Amino acid sequence: MTLITRRKNDKTLNDMAAPAPADTCARGHPVLRPKFPVPSDIEVSQSIVRDVGLLPIEEVAREAGILPSELLPWGTGKAKVQFAAVLSRLRDAPHGNYVVCTGINPTPLGEGKSTTTVGLVQALGAILGRRAYACIRQPSQGPTFGIKGGAAGGGYAQVVPMEEFNLHLTGDIHAISASNNLLAAAIDSRMYHEDSQSDEALYRRLCPGGRGFSNVMRRRLVKLGIDPNSDPDDLTTEERSKFARLDIDPSTITWNRVLDVCDRHLRVIEVGLGPNETYQPRGTVGGETPRRQHARRTGFDIAVASEIMAVLALARDLADLRDKLGNMVVAYSRGGETVTADDLGCGGALTVLMKDAILPTLMQTVERTPVFVHAGPFANIAIGNSSIVADRLALKLAGEDGYVVTEAGFGADIGMEKFFNIKCRASGLKPKCAVIVATVRALKMHGGGPPVSAGKPLAREYTEEDVPLVTAGCCNLAKHIENARKFGVEVVVAINRFKSDTEAEVAAVREASIAAGAFDAVVANHWAEGGKGAEALGRAVIAACEASDVGNFRFLYDLELPIRAKVETISREIYGADGVDFSELAEQQMAQYESSGFGNLPICIAKTQYSFSCDPKAKGVPTGFRIFVREIRSCVGAGFLYPICGDIMTIPGLPTRPGFYDVDINVETGQVIGLF
Amino acid sequence: MTLITRRKNDKTLNDMAAPAPADTCARGHPVLRPKFPVPSDIEVSQSIVRDVGLLPIEEVAREAGILPSELLPWGTGKAKVQFAAVLSRLRDAPHGNYVVCTGINPTPLGEGKSTTTVGLVQALGAILGRRAYACIRQPSQGPTFGIKGGAAGGGYAQVVPMEEFNLHLTGDIHAISASNNLLAAAIDSRMYHEDSQSDEALYRRLCPGGRGFSNVMRRRLVKLGIDPNSDPDDLTTEERSKFARLDIDPSTITWNRVLDVCDRHLRVIEVGLGPNETYQPRGTVGGETPRRQHARRTGFDIAVASEIMAVLALARDLADLRDKLGNMVVAYSRGGETVTADDLGCGGALTVLMKDAILPTLMQTVERTPVFVHAGPFANIAIGNSSIVADRLALKLAGEDGYVVTEAGFGADIGMEKFFNIKCRASGLKPKCAVIVATVRALKMHGGGPPVSAGKPLAREYTEEDVPLVTAGCCNLAKHIENARKFGVEVVVAINRFKSDTEAEVAAVREASIAAGAFDAVVANHWAEGGKGAEALGRAVIAACEASDVGNFRFLYDLELPIRAKVETISREIYGADGVDFSELAEQQMAQYESSGFGNLPICIAKTQYSFSCDPKAKGVPTGFRIFVREIRSCVGAGFLYPICGDIMTIPGLPTRPGFYDVDINVETGQVIGLF
Repeated sequence: MTLITRRKNDKTLNDMAAPAPADTCARGHPVLRPKFPVPSDIEVSQSIVRDVGLLPIEEVAREAGILPSELLPWGTGKAKVQFAAVLSRLRDAPHGNYVVCTGINPTPLGEGKSTTTVGLVQALGAILGRRAYACIRQPSQGPTFGIKGGAAGGGYAQVVPMEEFNLHLTGDIHAISASNNLLAAAIDSRMYHEDSQSDEALYRRLCPGGRGFSNVMRRRLVKLGIDPNSDPDDLTTEERSKFARLDIDPSTITWNRVLDVCDRHLRVIEVGLGPNETYQPRGTVGGETPRRQHARRTGFDIAVASEIMAVLALARDLADLRDKLGNMVVAYSRGGETVTADDLGCGGALTVLMKDAILPTLMQTVERTPVFVHAGPFANIAIGNSSIVADRLALKLAGEDGYVVTEAGFGADIGMEKFFNIKCRASGLKPKCAVIVATVRALKMHGGGPPVSAGKPLAREYTEEDVPLVTAGCCNLAKHIENARKFGVEVVVAINRFKSDTEAEVAAVREASIAAGAFDAVVANHWAEGGKGAEALGRAVIAACEASDVGNFRFLYDLELPIRAKVETISREIYGADGVDFSELAEQQMAQYESSGFGNLPICIAKTQYSFSCDPKAKGVPTGFRIFVREIRSCVGAGFLYPICGDIMTIPGLPTRPGFYDVDINVETGQVIGLF
Repeated sequence: MTLITRRKNDKTLNDMAAPAPADTCARGHPVLRPKFPVPSDIEVSQSIVRDVGLLPIEEVAREAGILPSELLPWGTGKAKVQFAAVLSRLRDAPHGNYVVCTGINPTPLGEGKSTTTVGLVQALGAILGRRAYACIRQPSQGPTFGIKGGAAGGGYAQVVPMEEFNLHLTGDIHAISASNNLLAAAIDSRMYHEDSQSDEALYRRLCPGGRGFSNVMRRRLVKLGIDPNSDPDDLTTEERSKFARLDIDPSTITWNRVLDVCDRHLRVIEVGLGPNETYQPRGTVGGETPRRQHARRTGFDIAVASEIMAVLALARDLADLRDKLGNMVVAYSRGGETVTADDLGCGGALTVLMKDAILPTLMQTVERTPVFVHAGPFANIAIGNSSIVADRLALKLAGEDGYVVTEAGFGADIGMEKFFNIKCRASGLKPKCAVIVATVRALKMHGGGPPVSAGKPLAREYTEEDVPLVTAGCCNLAKHIENARKFGVEVVVAINRFKSDTEAEVAAVREASIAAGAFDAVVANHWAEGGKGAEALGRAVIAACEASDVGNFRFLYDLELPIRAKVETISREIYGADGVDFSELAEQQMAQYESSGFGNLPICIAKTQYSFSCDPKAKGVPTGFRIFVREIRSCVGAGFLYPICGDIMTIPGLPTRPGFYDVDINVETGQVIGLF
C-alpha cells in the first residue's frame, strides 16, 4: 500500500549532501546528473541553484534572442520582457512550430502536463539542440497553499527557482486582483452615490468646473452619441442625466470580487451591512425617512477566474488591453443598457494597474532553456491558457525551425477546446500539433479502477500490472485524440511514465493511441531523467510538426451560430453529451446577450475537469448525459461568454490539512522549506 | 477663488516640450532646472526620466554603499536590498543621525510630510554633500485611486519614477494581502472542518501516517507542553484532542480580511452564505439533522492596516518576522486560550509569502539621492511608520556623519507618538531630531478658518494674508512641538511654503515655533525648487542633530502600566484629553489581554488625524473632551494593542468622482497619464 499525499511525495527525500557531478547539454551548459530516487521538487530546484547555478537571467534572455534593452530584471532569476519591442524588431521573422500540450481527464493527482511541457522543451532545446520555448501559466497561490502540487513542472523537468515561480512571481495575479477589486468597489460605491444624489449634483461632482472631460469620460460620451470634444458646460440637461446616471440594476451585476486564496466562505457573501453604508433616498429630507441599507448579496471568485485574467491571456498588445478592459460589461442599467468599466470611469486605471502584468515573465528550466510564464491556470473555471502575447513572442524568437510548446490546462475537453476555439481564433496563430499527456494510473481509473484521491492510499490496481484495466480506460484518451483531430492538428500522445508502469501496460496505451488517430505515442520519463527522458517525445513532436499542414487547422463552430447552438456543439462534439439544458437565468442571460450584440462571441465553458460530463465521477467516456448550464456570465472585454455548468465552484476551499502546514523558511539561510 | 481638487492640481500643466537645461548637484549629477509654474507630479517625474535620465539603480546602490551582491533589481528603477548581508558586513559601523519627519494635524489636502522628507534628503545629499537617506512608506493603492495625492513627495521633491512608486512597487502590500487573507481563510475553514469531525478524525487528517509533525506543528506542541520531538502516534487521546481541536469562539475573532482598495461596502459583511458552506454537526447521521449554515459577520480592512504590515514595520530580521507572524493572535478558544497563526499551521507559509517583502526597496529622488521604501502608511489606523529594517540599514550605510530621515505619518500626535513609543522601543534606535511640517494654510484652519476639503473651492482666508488667523492657529503647532520635546529630541519646524504665503505670515509661524521650544523654524520651498529650496532646512537639521544628545531620549509611558493607564497617558499627555471612556467590549478585551499576558504591550491608537481629539472638526488645541475607545484589537505578533477610537473606519470609501477617472495610459508610448 502506497500512501499518496501529493504526487510529489511519492518520492523519497534522499541524501542531498554530496552534489552529483554535472554533465553538459547540447548547448554547452552544465546539467545536474539526475539522482535516483528523485528528490522532492524543491530539493531538485535548490540543488540546481546550489550545484549547477542558475544561468543569469540576462544570459537566458541573450540565448533566447532578447536584447538587454528589451529586458527588465525582476528579483531572483526572473525578468519581464518588453514584448512590443521584440515583436517590432522581429516583425518580418517567420513563426516557429506551434505545439499545444494538454491531457486526458486527470486524477486529482494530475497527469503532469506542466512537467511534460517543460520536459519536452528541455528535450527539444538542451538535448536536440533546437530553439525551443515553453509558454506556461503562472500558478494560483490558492492551490499552492491548498491541495495541489506546484505548477512549475516537477522532478528534473521544472522551472527554477521553483519558489520564485510558485510565489508571487512578478506580481501579475496581484495586479489582476487589484484591478478586479478596484472595479468592484467602483460599482458598489457608484450605486451608493447615485442613490443619494440628483442627476445634476452627480454631474457636477463628476465634472467639476474647469477640468474638462477626462479620457475615460470621452469614451462614455462616444457611447452615448455625444461629441467627445464637448466641454462639460455644453451638455443639455438630458445629456447630463444620461452621462451621470448609470442606474445599475443590482440584480444584473455579474462582477465578483476576487482573491488568490482558497476561501470557500467568500463564495456567497452579503456586503454593505455597515451602519455607514446606508443612504438617504433622493428627494427626502434628513431624518424624516428612515435610511436604507445598501446591502447586496455577491461573492468572491479565485483571482485566476477574473475576466481580467482572460483579458491578459487574450490581449494582443497594450492598446488591445486598454480596449478590452474598458469594454468589460459588469452589469446592465434598469433600462437594459450595458454598464462597462469605462462607463464607471475605470478602464484607464485598470490598464495602468496591468501595465507590467502584460509583459511576459522569462525564467529558465533546470536545463537552462527559456520559459515564458504568462496568464493563469484553471481551465475548468477560466480560459486557463497562457497568453497570446507570450506565444507570439516565443514564436517570433523561435523562428522557422524553432518550437513553442504552450500549455492548455486540465483535460483536453476544456483546456484544448478553449485553446483552439477561443485563443487561436483571437490570435490568428495556427498550431501544428497537440501533445496529449496520459498516465497509466489515470487510464486505469477511467477503465473502472477505484477512486484516486489526494491524501488517501492508492489501491492495488494502481501499483500492480493490470493491462485489461488500462485498455478499458484508453477510451478516454481515444476520445481526446479524436477531438483534437477535429481541429486538423496532428496528435502525439505523451505517456508520462511512473515507476510502477509495466511494458505491457505502456504498449496497450500506445496501441490504443495509434488506433484512435494519433501520429505517435511515446513514453516519456523527463520527471526522473530531465530532457533526456523526453528525447523520443521531442523527436515525435518534430516529426508530427513536419507532417502537419497548418492549412488543415479549423474551428469547431462558427461564431455566427446562436449562443445555444454553440454550447450544444461543444457539448455534443467534444463532451459527447446528448444535449444541453439551460436554467431560466441562463435563458434570460442568452436573450440579454443576443439583444446586446454579444451573441457572436465564442464560448468558454466552466465545468469539472474530471470527466467529459459535469459529473466528476463519470470516468472513461460517459454517454447518455446532458449538460446543465446554471448561469452564463458575459466576458465581453475578454471576448467570450462563460456558461457555468453543473455545480462547479468559482473559488475552491481548503482541506482539513492544507499544504501550508508543510511550508516554512530556514531563518538562517532564507531557504524555503516544504513547498512540494 | 481657487478651485482645489487635489493638492497637486494647484499647478498648471505647462509646456514640457522644450527640455530645461540641466544643472549639476554637489555629487556631480545632472539636475533638472525646475520650471515655473511647477508641472504636475507625473510630468516632473517623466521629465526627469526623459531629460536627465534615471541613474541606473545599480549606480544608486553603489553610491549608497550597497554591493552588487546585496542588490536584487526589480523592474524599472527599483531594487530590493538584501539588508541582512549589508548589516552583517557593517556590523561594527556607527549609526548616522536619526531624524523623524512628521507634521501638525493636516488639512485633507496634506501638509507635505513626504515631500519634505524627500526635499530634506535632497538638500542634505545633493546640495550639502552629506550621506543622506530617506526612509519612506509605500503608498496604499486605495487612496491612489481614491482621493489622495501620491505619496512619492511632489513637485521637485519626489521619488522617481513616481508611477513605479505609486503602483504595486515591488509587491510588498500585495504580499501582505496574500498572507493576511490566507490566514483568514484558514480560520473559517478550520472552524468548518472542526464542526463536522471528531477529535480523532481531525487528528488523523492533520497527521496522516508516516509524515511526522511539520515545523509549525512542533511550535503548537511546545505551546501545549508536549515534547515537540514526539511522533504523531505517541500522543495520548487527550493530547491529540488538545492538539487537533482549536475550538475557536467565533465571537472572539479579531482577524479581518484585507484589500488594498477603498471599498466601503466591505466594512461589514456576512460570509459563508453559500449552500456548500453548511456542515453536518458532529454525532448526527446524514440527512436526519438539518445542515447548519456556517455564516459569520466580519469585515475587510485596508491592507495597510493589517497586523502583517505592522509586523513588517517592526520586525528586526527574518527570524523575528517568522516569530512575529506565528505569534499573531487571531481569536480565542471557547476555553479562553489564544489561537495563533502557528496554531492554525500558517506561520511558516506567511513568512514564505513575506520573504521578499522584508527586503527594503531602493529608489532615487529627482536629485538621484537614495530612498528606501518600506512598510506602510495610515498612522491613523495603523502604525504608519516605515520599517525598522530600512531605518537600521540606512543608519549603518549613513555612518557617523550621515543622516537618515524617516517618515512618521499624519499628525505628530499619532505618527510621531507611535514612532517614539512603539517603533523606537522595538528597535532600540535613538532619534536626535523631529522635523514637524506645517503649512500656513493648515495653521489658518486651526486658527478658525473655514473648512478645507478636497474638491471644494478654497475660501478667501486661505489665499490672502491673514496674520492673526495664522497666529491663532499656531497653538496646534506649539502643542506638537511641546509633545515632541517630552521625548527629549530637538525639534525643527519646516514651514512648507505655498505661493500665497506672505513674509509676515511665515514670520508669525517662526516666532510661535521658537516660543514653543523648537530648536529652529525654517521656510522650505523644495516642492518648487528641489533640494536647493530645503537647503536652510537641511542646515537647521544638521545643527539640531549636533546640539542633540541621544541620552535625553525617553518614552512617554512604562510598559508595565495597566493598559488603561497607558491609553490614558497618551490621551492626556499627547492629545490633551480629560480622560478616556471604554466601551463594554473594550473593557472585556482589556481584561482578556491582561489575563493572557499581553498587558505589557505598547499602545497603537487608531483615531482621526484631523484633530488632537476624536472629532475631526475640533481644530487648534481642543480641550474639555474625552477619548472614546470602542474596541481594542490585539496585535500580539506585531507587539502592540490597538484601541479603535471614535468612529474611525479601517477601510475608506470612494468619493463620487474618484481619482481613477483621471488615470489612463498612452497606448503608443506606454506612459501613464493623470496619476496626480
